[in-house]
Amino acid sequence: MPKSVNRRLLLAKRPGRAGVTQDCFRLEEAEVPAPGPGQLLIRVLWLSCDPAMRGWIAEGPNYSEPVPLGGVMRSFTLGRVEVSQHPDYPVGSYVSGRQGWQDWAISDGSDIDRIVDPEQAPLSANLHLLGMTGLTAYLGLTDVGRPKVGETVVVSTAAGAVGSVVGQVAKLLGCRTVGITGSSGKVSDCLETYGYDAAINYRDYETTDALASALAEVCPAGVDVYYDMTAGWISDAVMGQIAIGARIVVVGTMAMPSTPPPVGPRYSRQMLVTRATMTGFLVLDHFDRLEEAVTKLGAWYREGRLRYREDVTEGLERAPEALMKLLNGRTRGKVLVKLAD
Amino acid sequence: MPKSVNRRLLLAKRPGRAGVTQDCFRLEEAEVPAPGPGQLLIRVLWLSCDPAMRGWIAEGPNYSEPVPLGGVMRSFTLGRVEVSQHPDYPVGSYVSGRQGWQDWAISDGSDIDRIVDPEQAPLSANLHLLGMTGLTAYLGLTDVGRPKVGETVVVSTAAGAVGSVVGQVAKLLGCRTVGITGSSGKVSDCLETYGYDAAINYRDYETTDALASALAEVCPAGVDVYYDMTAGWISDAVMGQIAIGARIVVVGTMAMPSTPPPVGPRYSRQMLVTRATMTGFLVLDHFDRLEEAVTKLGAWYREGRLRYREDVTEGLERAPEALMKLLNGRTRGKVLVKLAD
Repeated sequence: MPKSVNRRLLLAKRPGRAGVTQDCFRLEEAEVPAPGPGQLLIRVLWLSCDPAMRGWIAEGPNYSEPVPLGGVMRSFTLGRVEVSQHPDYPVGSYVSGRQGWQDWAISDGSDIDRIVDPEQAPLSANLHLLGMTGLTAYLGLTDVGRPKVGETVVVSTAAGAVGSVVGQVAKLLGCRTVGITGSSGKVSDCLETYGYDAAINYRDYETTDALASALAEVCPAGVDVYYDMTAGWISDAVMGQIAIGARIVVVGTMAMPSTPPPVGPRYSRQMLVTRATMTGFLVLDHFDRLEEAVTKLGAWYREGRLRYREDVTEGLERAPEALMKLLNGRTRGKVLVKLAD
Repeated sequence: MPKSVNRRLLLAKRPGRAGVTQDCFRLEEAEVPAPGPGQLLIRVLWLSCDPAMRGWIAEGPNYSEPVPLGGVMRSFTLGRVEVSQHPDYPVGSYVSGRQGWQDWAISDGSDIDRIVDPEQAPLSANLHLLGMTGLTAYLGLTDVGRPKVGETVVVSTAAGAVGSVVGQVAKLLGCRTVGITGSSGKVSDCLETYGYDAAINYRDYETTDALASALAEVCPAGVDVYYDMTAGWISDAVMGQIAIGARIVVVGTMAMPSTPPPVGPRYSRQMLVTRATMTGFLVLDHFDRLEEAVTKLGAWYREGRLRYREDVTEGLERAPEALMKLLNGRTRGKVLVKLAD
């Protein structure tokens, strides 16, 4: 039984108008607990930072229970089983799950998503390409976006963890891919690493109309599938370019603050004129298809057909910093926090 | 060959900020043309007034070619074949089609939708329940709304030509139905004629929030299907009440002026949190399923399970007046113009 101290990051307060700040979290030390019958003790090695975290700690209704004040910050994690009284999880096995922002976690298996094979890909890849990120990208694109060969697929946050997988999978499925992203470095990632046919830095444009014109130039036949992680003014520009029968997959709303209640151009007319379909997609509804996505994406990865970037911060105590960087768009690739080897 | 004069209503100018006005149209007299080989001459008996007409005569992109300035106003019509050089359409047969706002029309059959059996229902019903109106209601609800037994279906313009069919069909399919409409008379129609479980007069509420509260009261489990003919602030109230997995069918945007570009609350967050689907539905895409809808709706009608109201104006020259009344919400039931017996 390890004698280490368990450091945990608790939610100290909910974000105000300034968004997520360091003082939303509080570091606390506790004893490492001992697993009882049917339980196991996990050493958390990696934390995943995800845009959805902003919603998890916000006030008000959301698609998942808010993290309670004083509770351990919720997080997707990758860890190693150190002590086990559970037959499914032998000591030394690696698991991905939702153990939260802490060094050690007790589990009865209900917050474990899968046992990870360290031979298939680097361990950390199980927190993105071969995890919820990959599932979000793969299912959202294929099930809801339903891209057909030759169609134009536009991805907002195109160089991000989810977006970069969407762009690459769309390309593998025979589509033309156009990425929207927020820096020239990310534009390079889109073109050079993720194989987008075109990429646009939205920060180069001051108005929706200007961004829309730039998009129209690289989407001469309109946008057939829009994989939307931003909402807000970036989506306004895309919505003006959607083709007849377009599918819009709403996966995130990063460019749209929750308060005050956001206002913008109404889409009803575009939806009607183009007979488009807009669907909200939440990966939480599709955990049962994780193995299917991991199998598909893992095969492409091992064939060298899928690439990724990681943006790694070291140390549990720096997790809030990593999350803030992510939410401010100052990261490239999947944002991870490394706790231990 | 009839020697009558052909009176035609032409589009004189496009509607400005004041919307559709009398002077958008101009009455012109012309000779009744003689049909050539493969053609027929139709006496137009009934005109249909539809909200879509606003779009047909507007400037700017739309889902159908705009009616050209100086052209005969486009309209769904019901007529009788008076002269025929076309084997499919014998003299004396009744046809529904798109002959426009005129007394007489030459056709080669391409603007005829179907031959109407006058025994199945009153002739005029072929311009609503057993026509495009019925098709719009039936397919939009069943194909896109996909209501399940016990679900709550909300219809905006609930007492209108399309809405009243949607409400009744949803009820026949085992749903709870809630209508939103714009007068106390129409609320009575909803409850007494069309069998809605609840009906709301939106004019009783001054704010979106107040309308939303009223809706929440009659939709305690949320809104599973929203058949939307209005968009705008009425839809804003409904969007706050949608249930997980809701389907929103966007069929019209009557409560939303086209200019200036309409602005309102953004729906992205609701779409995401509820995993809802919003789809634009245009009946123009589904003409091939008219017989299917007419067969289904006709059977229900003859069993006495579908009811309708007509709002009839007499005389071609009064068609603009009927259209304006419709667009201003001052009609009850299907708006028709009767030209002749």
